[in-house]
Amino acid sequence: MRLGCGFIKNVVNVSRNMVLAPKHQLYRYQILPQEVNLREKLRLVALESYLLNVAGFAAQENGFGSMGMIERGVTWVLSRLGVEMTSLPNQYEWISIETWVQDYGRIATVRNFIIRDSEERVIGYAMSQWALIDINTRRPVDLRNYPEFTVFATGETVPITPPARVPILDDIPVVGEHKVVYSDIDFNGHTNSMKYIEWMLDTIEPEYHYAHQVRRFDVNYVHEITQGQTAVLLRAEHEGSMVFEVSNGETVACRAMVHWLENE
Amino acid sequence: MRLGCGFIKNVVNVSRNMVLAPKHQLYRYQILPQEVNLREKLRLVALESYLLNVAGFAAQENGFGSMGMIERGVTWVLSRLGVEMTSLPNQYEWISIETWVQDYGRIATVRNFIIRDSEERVIGYAMSQWALIDINTRRPVDLRNYPEFTVFATGETVPITPPARVPILDDIPVVGEHKVVYSDIDFNGHTNSMKYIEWMLDTIEPEYHYAHQVRRFDVNYVHEITQGQTAVLLRAEHEGSMVFEVSNGETVACRAMVHWLENE
Repeated sequence: MRLGCGFIKNVVNVSRNMVLAPKHQLYRYQILPQEVNLREKLRLVALESYLLNVAGFAAQENGFGSMGMIERGVTWVLSRLGVEMTSLPNQYEWISIETWVQDYGRIATVRNFIIRDSEERVIGYAMSQWALIDINTRRPVDLRNYPEFTVFATGETVPITPPARVPILDDIPVVGEHKVVYSDIDFNGHTNSMKYIEWMLDTIEPEYHYAHQVRRFDVNYVHEITQGQTAVLLRAEHEGSMVFEVSNGETVACRAMVHWLENE
Repeated sequence: MRLGCGFIKNVVNVSRNMVLAPKHQLYRYQILPQEVNLREKLRLVALESYLLNVAGFAAQENGFGSMGMIERGVTWVLSRLGVEMTSLPNQYEWISIETWVQDYGRIATVRNFIIRDSEERVIGYAMSQWALIDINTRRPVDLRNYPEFTVFATGETVPITPPARVPILDDIPVVGEHKVVYSDIDFNGHTNSMKYIEWMLDTIEPEYHYAHQVRRFDVNYVHEITQGQTAVLLRAEHEGSMVFEVSNGETVACRAMVHWLENE
């Protein structure tokens, strides 16, 4: 009898080398073929997906996961995310993601992440800001209504700038559009957050992607795009970064900013 | 200190209830939010992705994984896949996938799969046919050049019809097209096999998807589509199934057939 070894989060290895700080949680993953690009490096969209899944699992373990919150009439929405990577993992490489809550305020909670490679070297940091909204009105809810979760706020930050407010540019040109289709739609009937990023990055020629890698990535989620709508994609260069907007033609849904480094 | 519990393939649980037959391998996964549709059921594309990843990991453990084979100048290509599901797992549900090699012939090897839900009830079966091609000429290689792998052929089948040759229809109408973009391209510079399926299914109105679920799915991979090409998507009803073709405008790349069941 042989047992497979794919997709394991190996709890034994985790505790082998690291002692986690209180209220920190750790997850390990193996990078899969569909998550890498032609250079066999983890795609930005797959990286964001890992961060959001880790946030979901960690919240669940702490007692404030989305499933339980929805039963209480509210749900978490990601408003801002900032990610800085010094290197990107390769296909089949193991990574670990350590996460904790930094702050738990009135209108937002901050969750941080450290991303490590298979040798447990730090390869990146991320900081995310989340709001709680009423599932019917879609309006923000005062987090002080849930004081039981303040105990998870550690006050511990990560050594990167918090997620930026992505600049609103005046004459940002339309570079493409995307009709929302079945594969874009989440379990909640809205476009999956990662899809905005995929559409943005797909407006860039593949050759540019292969010649560059992401150094810093900021995203601001503003509104949702729903089934049947067409996303309009805008992009411009701005102070050494690429700035993106995704709108439904009227309202901006998402803004993002990517600072690229040229590959050696 | 708390340890996360996402994405585990829990080897302990695996051995608790099941004794695997010789040369069988088992993998456990938790279904993630981005892998489900509005009905919170596993998407067909995500299911195929699991099957192909499992095939990759199992081959790797047996000593004939793609990475090692590429060093020998050859690589595995999936030619046909047939999947039958009686039910689809939900978001966050655990599934297990058992796999083994049935047959190892001159031009193809057959790998089978059993998909079980979190209660270890069988919810589906799959059968896949793979060929080995020369990485330079892209021509099939005689598997008898690698006789060391014949020991893995168990002769054991699954209780479903083998992957069908999808019928070639005369007047199948064009229902859409898709320009191949960065996110479509694999580590090998070609379109990721799952993307063909995604493009096909995205030609169907979301409402149809929510009213139906996949009962049987057959796919035939014929040619590759590369960067810069535009995929032409064709679809027709045929004897109670939906038949699809994806071509690069000249050559057919992929044919598939889906038999849907109406949801209750």
